[in-house]
Amino acid sequence: MPTWVPGAAGSAFDVDNLPYGAFSRSGEDRRAVGVRIGDYVLDLAPALADEVFASGSLNPFLARGRAAWDETRRRVQALLTQEESRGTAETHLVPLAEVRMHMPFEVADYVDFYCSLEHASNLGRMFRPDEEPLKPNWRHLPVGYHGRAGTVVASGTSVVRPSGQRAPGPVFGPSAKLDIEVELGFVVGVPTALGERAGSFADHVFGVTLVNDWSARDIQAWEYVPLGPFLGKSFATSVSPWITPLAALEHVRVPGRAQEPEPMDYLRRAENWGLDLAMEVRLNGEVVSRPPYRGMYWTPDQMLAHMTVNGASLRTGDLFASGTVSGAESGERGSFIEMTWNGTEPIKLANGETRTFLEDGDTVTISATAGGLALGEVTGTVKPAR
Amino acid sequence: MPTWVPGAAGSAFDVDNLPYGAFSRSGEDRRAVGVRIGDYVLDLAPALADEVFASGSLNPFLARGRAAWDETRRRVQALLTQEESRGTAETHLVPLAEVRMHMPFEVADYVDFYCSLEHASNLGRMFRPDEEPLKPNWRHLPVGYHGRAGTVVASGTSVVRPSGQRAPGPVFGPSAKLDIEVELGFVVGVPTALGERAGSFADHVFGVTLVNDWSARDIQAWEYVPLGPFLGKSFATSVSPWITPLAALEHVRVPGRAQEPEPMDYLRRAENWGLDLAMEVRLNGEVVSRPPYRGMYWTPDQMLAHMTVNGASLRTGDLFASGTVSGAESGERGSFIEMTWNGTEPIKLANGETRTFLEDGDTVTISATAGGLALGEVTGTVKPAR
Repeated sequence: MPTWVPGAAGSAFDVDNLPYGAFSRSGEDRRAVGVRIGDYVLDLAPALADEVFASGSLNPFLARGRAAWDETRRRVQALLTQEESRGTAETHLVPLAEVRMHMPFEVADYVDFYCSLEHASNLGRMFRPDEEPLKPNWRHLPVGYHGRAGTVVASGTSVVRPSGQRAPGPVFGPSAKLDIEVELGFVVGVPTALGERAGSFADHVFGVTLVNDWSARDIQAWEYVPLGPFLGKSFATSVSPWITPLAALEHVRVPGRAQEPEPMDYLRRAENWGLDLAMEVRLNGEVVSRPPYRGMYWTPDQMLAHMTVNGASLRTGDLFASGTVSGAESGERGSFIEMTWNGTEPIKLANGETRTFLEDGDTVTISATAGGLALGEVTGTVKPAR
Repeated sequence: MPTWVPGAAGSAFDVDNLPYGAFSRSGEDRRAVGVRIGDYVLDLAPALADEVFASGSLNPFLARGRAAWDETRRRVQALLTQEESRGTAETHLVPLAEVRMHMPFEVADYVDFYCSLEHASNLGRMFRPDEEPLKPNWRHLPVGYHGRAGTVVASGTSVVRPSGQRAPGPVFGPSAKLDIEVELGFVVGVPTALGERAGSFADHVFGVTLVNDWSARDIQAWEYVPLGPFLGKSFATSVSPWITPLAALEHVRVPGRAQEPEPMDYLRRAENWGLDLAMEVRLNGEVVSRPPYRGMYWTPDQMLAHMTVNGASLRTGDLFASGTVSGAESGERGSFIEMTWNGTEPIKLANGETRTFLEDGDTVTISATAGGLALGEVTGTVKPAR
């Protein structure tokens, strides 16, 4: 049945989408959880008479688990499609123009993977020109590391250009190679106990969000040996305000890319968790890249299995991200360091400007579609170093 | 004035110590914050008539900041030394034997540094035998990375031997090189805003805790390039149940070790934050090492300055740790990989056994003294892989 919400039927935010976010109404401080339908937000606490949505954070709902997530989705879809619900539900619809979106959930731990064969190969060539681009472990496990959970911020938050050390010298100053990483993030709902491995992907993971893992390449290149990226990444990571439930992505689930060698048993894919998402990167409004998520080498079920195979526990609110999504073609790269080959091949913009890395005032927006549905965008503007 | 608490005066937990922890009474679920005095815990919420201590977590108190921390310390010291307070305060003293200790605070982000010149050099020699042991950045900045905050556990929590991939092969199985890292951890109280640098060390950092950063060396060695340690560390990190306030460590503050080259301005030491702590590692009760904290190359004020120089914000409950404390002498190494030179030189125990890495059932306890005061111990026992 089509939705009765004005303008929503057939839109990118139709009743088969329904992402979750945390919003406040203009001029009010109180935050609440809602779902997006068309250009409205449905205020879930009163609409469903469920106080779990009144806290302004998705975490309590995330903790409820798969059966509750699915049941809630059915109830919301019924509310938004049945004419007899319209009278009451309509009173809980707020136009998007009248809300402010916030960080949708409290991030517990943030893990960033490195799942694109093309991205890892490109970065290897640039960071370690004298070696094989891929390290020997890369095809055996999804390489990952922990990022800074406290600096994961909502879309729209400005990003202050970080300062730090860089080679040669080293010298200290504002990063001269401020970059993005276009990623897909996965939001964990159901925790595990310490010492246990996670069960099936859909039992633990609620949904997805777009991620911009802002990166200062010059700081990163100097600091990252031997313990990995730290200040080159920890200044900010932006996420979409809308968390798209896995249930909305059924139609874009595809087999993962072929893997050679065959992964170990604990990494073997039991279901199709490749995702056919078309991503788009806009710099100051102009499309500069279209990374295809479908080509990622490691799939998110493999990331989850790997992250917990050592008994590390999951918490509600854990966020893990794919790493930069880059395809094989030049128009499919998910970072400026790749698009401009470490600044040696500037890109030309329609207004006549060129870019190697980001300049102060630049705005980067990442969007994605899953078939006819849209994921929430993630955007941010660079502010000058302090 | 000496304390009236029986047995406390002149002990390692006299009124000049007073570490904070979260406890529950035997048979009760309710957790509360207390300070340790001698072999007792003072239940702070009723003793000070302050509900900030009633939550069972130090975080709300940590957020209050330096002036409140110092004022609380003065009030507790007055209570425990003035005879006229004894009548009421005594009713809030609980014998240690009747309490259970818990995780003292909620960890926001966990950062692990690599501040011992001797440890970094030793590990470099073992992990990268064909290269200079120290990477070019090591003497210019305190190298660090983010660990898993969700698996920081209280002393006494068992550690399940992790499984994972290791070279050659790779093959999958329980770690055969389970190790410890003896560290000192620093607990952040006062947060900063995104984009700002931290101010002075004592304005942000409340106190210290002993840390055992359990490490699976075989998993780590295979996975850690190029993004750093992940599953080789993320299965468990243990901390002492007692957080020792900086105010209790004034008498062991010493100048930091000489640094060459001179650090950059933002890393320049303004005060003495070297700490003259004598640490001790016991394996199944037998002392196997005595790492001296005083010889650490990078001091904690430098770690804090570095961690925030890029504008990364601090949160109440952030934990950052020193990295393994190893001295120059063979009896001063803070990990088994160093004590046994990657397993090639087993250590002999008094009972005739030998050890390269940890075996199932082994218990490791780390303790430390600061002059006549003791820090809370951190202990854990290895359980077999699942």
